[in-house]
Amino acid sequence: MLELRLVQGGLLKKVLDSIKDLVNDANFDCSATGFSLQAMDSSHVALVSLLLRSEGFEHYRCDRNLSMGMNLGNMAKMLKCAGNDDIITIKADDGGDTVTFMFESPTQDKIADFEMKLMDIDSEHLGIPEAEYHAIVRMPSSEFARICKDLSSIGDTVVISVTKEGVKFSTRGDIGTANVVCRQNTTVDKPEDATVIEMNEPVSLTFALRYLNSFTKASPLSNTVTISLSSELPVVVEYKIAEMGFVRFYLAPKIEEDDEETKPMS
Amino acid sequence: MLELRLVQGGLLKKVLDSIKDLVNDANFDCSATGFSLQAMDSSHVALVSLLLRSEGFEHYRCDRNLSMGMNLGNMAKMLKCAGNDDIITIKADDGGDTVTFMFESPTQDKIADFEMKLMDIDSEHLGIPEAEYHAIVRMPSSEFARICKDLSSIGDTVVISVTKEGVKFSTRGDIGTANVVCRQNTTVDKPEDATVIEMNEPVSLTFALRYLNSFTKASPLSNTVTISLSSELPVVVEYKIAEMGFVRFYLAPKIEEDDEETKPMS
Amino acid sequence: MLELRLVQGGLLKKVLDSIKDLVNDANFDCSATGFSLQAMDSSHVALVSLLLRSEGFEHYRCDRNLSMGMNLGNMAKMLKCAGNDDIITIKADDGGDTVTFMFESPTQDKIADFEMKLMDIDSEHLGIPEAEYHAIVRMPSSEFARICKDLSSIGDTVVISVTKEGVKFSTRGDIGTANVVCRQNTTVDKPEDATVIEMNEPVSLTFALRYLNSFTKASPLSNTVTISLSSELPVVVEYKIAEMGFVRFYLAPKIEEDDEETKPMS
Repeated sequence: MLELRLVQGGLLKKVLDSIKDLVNDANFDCSATGFSLQAMDSSHVALVSLLLRSEGFEHYRCDRNLSMGMNLGNMAKMLKCAGNDDIITIKADDGGDTVTFMFESPTQDKIADFEMKLMDIDSEHLGIPEAEYHAIVRMPSSEFARICKDLSSIGDTVVISVTKEGVKFSTRGDIGTANVVCRQNTTVDKPEDATVIEMNEPVSLTFALRYLNSFTKASPLSNTVTISLSSELPVVVEYKIAEMGFVRFYLAPKIEEDDEETKPMS
Repeated sequence: MLELRLVQGGLLKKVLDSIKDLVNDANFDCSATGFSLQAMDSSHVALVSLLLRSEGFEHYRCDRNLSMGMNLGNMAKMLKCAGNDDIITIKADDGGDTVTFMFESPTQDKIADFEMKLMDIDSEHLGIPEAEYHAIVRMPSSEFARICKDLSSIGDTVVISVTKEGVKFSTRGDIGTANVVCRQNTTVDKPEDATVIEMNEPVSLTFALRYLNSFTKASPLSNTVTISLSSELPVVVEYKIAEMGFVRFYLAPKIEEDDEETKPMS
Repeated sequence: MLELRLVQGGLLKKVLDSIKDLVNDANFDCSATGFSLQAMDSSHVALVSLLLRSEGFEHYRCDRNLSMGMNLGNMAKMLKCAGNDDIITIKADDGGDTVTFMFESPTQDKIADFEMKLMDIDSEHLGIPEAEYHAIVRMPSSEFARICKDLSSIGDTVVISVTKEGVKFSTRGDIGTANVVCRQNTTVDKPEDATVIEMNEPVSLTFALRYLNSFTKASPLSNTVTISLSSELPVVVEYKIAEMGFVRFYLAPKIEEDDEETKPMS
């Protein structure tokens, strides 16, 4: 039997909103340590990894490991019916073929339960090794979202280049070119407004803007985003979920034949 | 001659917005007692009844009974041009074929008059007898609107069941099932937040959600809604208009062959 | 070389938003006195004239007169990427074929530059002589915008009639007629709320509402609008840009055969 009670139910709504456009169907894995998900996007280009640790729940009961296949669009439809301040409880029986979402209003005057059929979904769990990154950028999530949105009105791909001084986002399209530079800046009033760069070596990589734009739907989950870059690895775009875990997005860089800066030998 | 001056003109705008999607054309009936309307929706399933009592108007002159046929969409277009704080005056001559809406801004600096052609509309006035209801639920209008909207993302019909403890709204659809229970609750800070149930006997009835959703467009008129249910009668969904009257919506229950609770003999 | 630095960059965004739907491509003319534009709308019915005087810029360098052809839609796309509080710098080389827009965030932590290709646009600069007008109406820009929008839900053209007492806007359409009168009113708390009429002789002219509605997109630039009317001249609808200049729209009156008030001899 599974019973997970989350006092800040609004958080689960935000999690679903951040991944439902990227992934159609996925298995949620429940174990003693937490509630997690790992899934490729529908075009098999990006990977999403979600973890909500058991300690973050008010009540967490998971008698044995359970993998529950869900359609994320339908799940999001149901969670939309929860109020932002509702307490959400996820319930399932071992071996059952349904999951129940229970929403309690803060005053307990309104109780809703939504039951959804589970699906059988084939999936292989990819091991994602811990890796060393050439550069790690932490910046305000709203700023990153704004830049990705702005640049996609000009071009389709973005070159992200990191130096000690800052991070540069560049694009080009039919109507012209655009460069946005965010300088390293740690002397801010609020720590979440800082732009912090940890760099081992300079890196310059190209990505499809439409995936990055999709990742930024997780911005409501956290004031900051961490972007980890390495020339041999997919970029990791991580949004921490306060005291509970994270949503991480992985995306392989594009090999740009005509971009001499990133591929000097071609 | 007819001349009705309403200081809170915004109220007439809200009335029109609440019924214009349900009813295309209708007769407004003016008499010494008030300004009223009774009309079926265009698919002849639901009935709307509106009353604005003469006492609620700052000035009310109606020399003889008048029935004015109007296209509600066009009337709403004209009322949209009134400011929310404008004073609205409705004017018509006996035997004339037009109606004039006059809008005065609170400062009297801007005066608008909109003239609309009247229509001949056949309609029979249904006598709606006062009736005894098995159960009457009074609840916040925003809560009722939210529940109808939420459930219509899951199914097409709702079963409304009333017991002494509360009122339950249930639906089912392709993606699953949903139940929302609102408990009787009279110990609230603001009286309009209360959910109050008067019950003579338990009742459980099925309704088409699309009509209920349409009725909830009247929510801006009142903080509370009253739902009167009886197994032999159409449900009445009533929004009071402060000190002036009401908008009432009537809708016959659906006979659900596969719903054993509401049809125990089938 | 051209380098124009505008501290209130949000102003340039508003200027573009006010004209980009009316004009597709246009030449911006830069000289020692200012940054200006004059262009017909794409259907060659209305004329736009913009002036931003050099004194309004924090830094204004224009070595020799330059005419830069731009696609206003693309320019607006780029300016949309500037924050409302950003400082905007426009840069171009003499004889170059590109223009660069630089956006600096108030904290200087984020610097963006957008480069756009210039276009060759044929255009003749029309001399617009200073003229005497029969009547000049100054009124709140939001009020004028509201009236144009409201009336266009009823009809396609508006008759603007000015007398000493006020200005009347009238229209008629399939669903009826509408008249809105704004009375002269100079005793208001805030000067920008005043409606002030300077009249040499009464005037009554007819205009296409769709152009007036388009002009009102400049309302965010100024709290007031000035409408200058004369029976032999195009109307001028002017929005002042604080301490910098103006956007002016010119539109020829329509000759209405069936409107006896404006054409008494027909």
